[in-house]
Amino acid sequence: MTTVVIRGGRVLRPDMTVDRADVLVDGETGTIRAVGDVPAGDEVLDATEGLVMPGLVNAHTHAAMTLLRGYADDKPLDRWLREDIWPTEAALEPADVRAGTDLAMAEMIRSGTTAFGDMYFYMNEVAEAVEAAGLKARIAHGIVTVGKDASAAQDDLEEGLYIAKSHDGTADGRVRTAFAPHSLTTVSEEQLAAFVPKARAAGVPLHFHANETRDEVDPIVAERDERPLAYADSLDMLSQGDFLAHGVHLDETEMGLLADRGTSVVHCPASNMKLASGMAPVQRLLDAGVGVALGTDGAASNNDLDVFDEMRDAAMIGKLAAGDPAAVAAETVVRMATEGGNRALGFDGGRIEEGAAADVVVVDFDAPRMTPVHDYVSHLAYAATGSDVRHTLVDGRVLLRDRKLTTLDLDAVRERAASRAADLVDRAG
Amino acid sequence: MTTVVIRGGRVLRPDMTVDRADVLVDGETGTIRAVGDVPAGDEVLDATEGLVMPGLVNAHTHAAMTLLRGYADDKPLDRWLREDIWPTEAALEPADVRAGTDLAMAEMIRSGTTAFGDMYFYMNEVAEAVEAAGLKARIAHGIVTVGKDASAAQDDLEEGLYIAKSHDGTADGRVRTAFAPHSLTTVSEEQLAAFVPKARAAGVPLHFHANETRDEVDPIVAERDERPLAYADSLDMLSQGDFLAHGVHLDETEMGLLADRGTSVVHCPASNMKLASGMAPVQRLLDAGVGVALGTDGAASNNDLDVFDEMRDAAMIGKLAAGDPAAVAAETVVRMATEGGNRALGFDGGRIEEGAAADVVVVDFDAPRMTPVHDYVSHLAYAATGSDVRHTLVDGRVLLRDRKLTTLDLDAVRERAASRAADLVDRAG
Repeated sequence: MTTVVIRGGRVLRPDMTVDRADVLVDGETGTIRAVGDVPAGDEVLDATEGLVMPGLVNAHTHAAMTLLRGYADDKPLDRWLREDIWPTEAALEPADVRAGTDLAMAEMIRSGTTAFGDMYFYMNEVAEAVEAAGLKARIAHGIVTVGKDASAAQDDLEEGLYIAKSHDGTADGRVRTAFAPHSLTTVSEEQLAAFVPKARAAGVPLHFHANETRDEVDPIVAERDERPLAYADSLDMLSQGDFLAHGVHLDETEMGLLADRGTSVVHCPASNMKLASGMAPVQRLLDAGVGVALGTDGAASNNDLDVFDEMRDAAMIGKLAAGDPAAVAAETVVRMATEGGNRALGFDGGRIEEGAAADVVVVDFDAPRMTPVHDYVSHLAYAATGSDVRHTLVDGRVLLRDRKLTTLDLDAVRERAASRAADLVDRAG
Repeated sequence: MTTVVIRGGRVLRPDMTVDRADVLVDGETGTIRAVGDVPAGDEVLDATEGLVMPGLVNAHTHAAMTLLRGYADDKPLDRWLREDIWPTEAALEPADVRAGTDLAMAEMIRSGTTAFGDMYFYMNEVAEAVEAAGLKARIAHGIVTVGKDASAAQDDLEEGLYIAKSHDGTADGRVRTAFAPHSLTTVSEEQLAAFVPKARAAGVPLHFHANETRDEVDPIVAERDERPLAYADSLDMLSQGDFLAHGVHLDETEMGLLADRGTSVVHCPASNMKLASGMAPVQRLLDAGVGVALGTDGAASNNDLDVFDEMRDAAMIGKLAAGDPAAVAAETVVRMATEGGNRALGFDGGRIEEGAAADVVVVDFDAPRMTPVHDYVSHLAYAATGSDVRHTLVDGRVLLRDRKLTTLDLDAVRERAASRAADLVDRAG
């Protein structure tokens, strides 16, 4: 590993100010060694007309669902799942997951994402793929036991625990794990009561869907006369380091619980809009002291994995939800996509400063859409897209250099994904 | 002028099917001469891995506001206008409008827009700029008389009429005009009653803001005991060819009026979200038979001019507004951005077929985010961005070739815009 100097750009500091500075990153330690006037390095990345910023975090996705991007849109959630997504996922093979995850990572590296939170199937494939591509990820096997017989359900729970235990800390610490019951309505109370303590004993956090739609909230309230997150809390599912996806339909007591417990919410604005799930109360969550990260959800409900899009969507839908154009401001969404994401996933990135993890992105500011520059942070939130990313580094290693992937062969990845996607749809037929 | 063959791509047909075909366009007549197996042309544009589609229409913008992109975000509408936008606009000089419009057109051509509906000031500058850049535009001087003395108000109304009369049909018909009272609350009833007939006599349509916020609706209802569009109709402001921007807060009778009169609504989803104006009832408008186009509004409330973003935003917020993920589907937003926009602005584009105006765009499908391709139209709505546009033609003339502008010097345009923007902010103090 070598040292890399990012030369000629401006730097987004942890306090959200921007100034001219070079950045020296150390590939040995994976950290930022200096910011400002820095000595020469083994390699130089040009950042002229660029902004050096922390890598973005996509804290909730199902990466391999890139294979189903655009396969079925514009349908009600239950029909979409029953007619399109579940039958296709039932036909998934491990090589599909590898191909889809590689495609997702190509897209994420290309658009400035340095870490992601993944919940899917065949996660051994995902761990291998992440190790090879050089990204960071907190991965989990998504457990769904509803509709399964006792033996299949037990297998699924064990698989979730096995993945959580067997991969945590691998790939020089770039791969971390979580235990992931899919949601509070798709895994039973007995199963959660039996396995959550095992996840705790293994020292891994929980990652689950919660309060995404009214259909996830109302049955629990009807059956138990308590809110879903009170139920989750009674099962020890809300702790420091845990993170839940969506959190669209939350009441004040649930927001208070999340803040008290230190559990992050991964806000997925595009998916919530596309599936008409509702508007998450993001400004109220932030005001309550809840950690909020951003996620794209799977590509089938987005349909891309561009966290720049998600920042813009979060700012816009956040204002509409609050009825206040001052809500969920530009700086807020940039923090959600960087510090917030790292906090949710438990990675030590999100700041361009000496000693921080060298998860770094350089964004070009030379497109017409980025001109003039009154405010760099505004452009990150409202004008930039993933296409503006020039370089991406993870732990000091260059994964994207001048818009070219260094660890993935893009043509091969695209070809394999297209071919596996076509086969998958045929098999699911 | 020459003939151009767009070779090797797929074509989006008027019925929204996609197949392999080449396209021959004729620079003399400005039309598409053939689609399918076509003879050789004077010039070839490569469309391999690309989709040939109609150019996008940005039917409501204030192009020169690109100078204020990111200047002031995340503020309530009234404070934003009073503290930031109006003082700055008061300091505008003609050369600012030229610089901002050139920047806007660079961005629009780069992102596949072939026609736009513009309402701003110093519109002689805009007409010249449009003529030089090669785009199509329906331009109008935005008239605001509220707060002005009688003489200044009269001057503003006359200016609006003068612009409408003097530029219509210029630039080989690429520049058309409209008469544009800013809104129903910023121009008085007497003034509208006096000038709308003059606009009708001049044969130009009306372009105005309507029902964008509750503050635009409630005062009219309180004062007149009628809905804003009933009031507009009583002033002969809703006719075939007229188009109004926003239409967020509309009741059933107003939707019926719009459908009956043949007046289009230009939906501006990003601006409506960013300013927390509300969610336009787009699916209900379409169901009522109202023509719906898409607009970015000015760059200060968006903050870009990318109609691909607007398609995605329209589909997503349209579903949320309807509470139905099947609402405002991918095909619908593509039609809104093409046919709908041309219908609103009165241009003859929007279809790739023999004899149609050669306003044509080639979109690359080779990005990871566009892989795999189960459905081309889905990708246009949900996955593509303006950065994926490879070629842009207007009336058969190539304005963007392999992502390079042919009629605008991008570096000079960016430099002038940045310099004028900095000076403008200084002057506005």
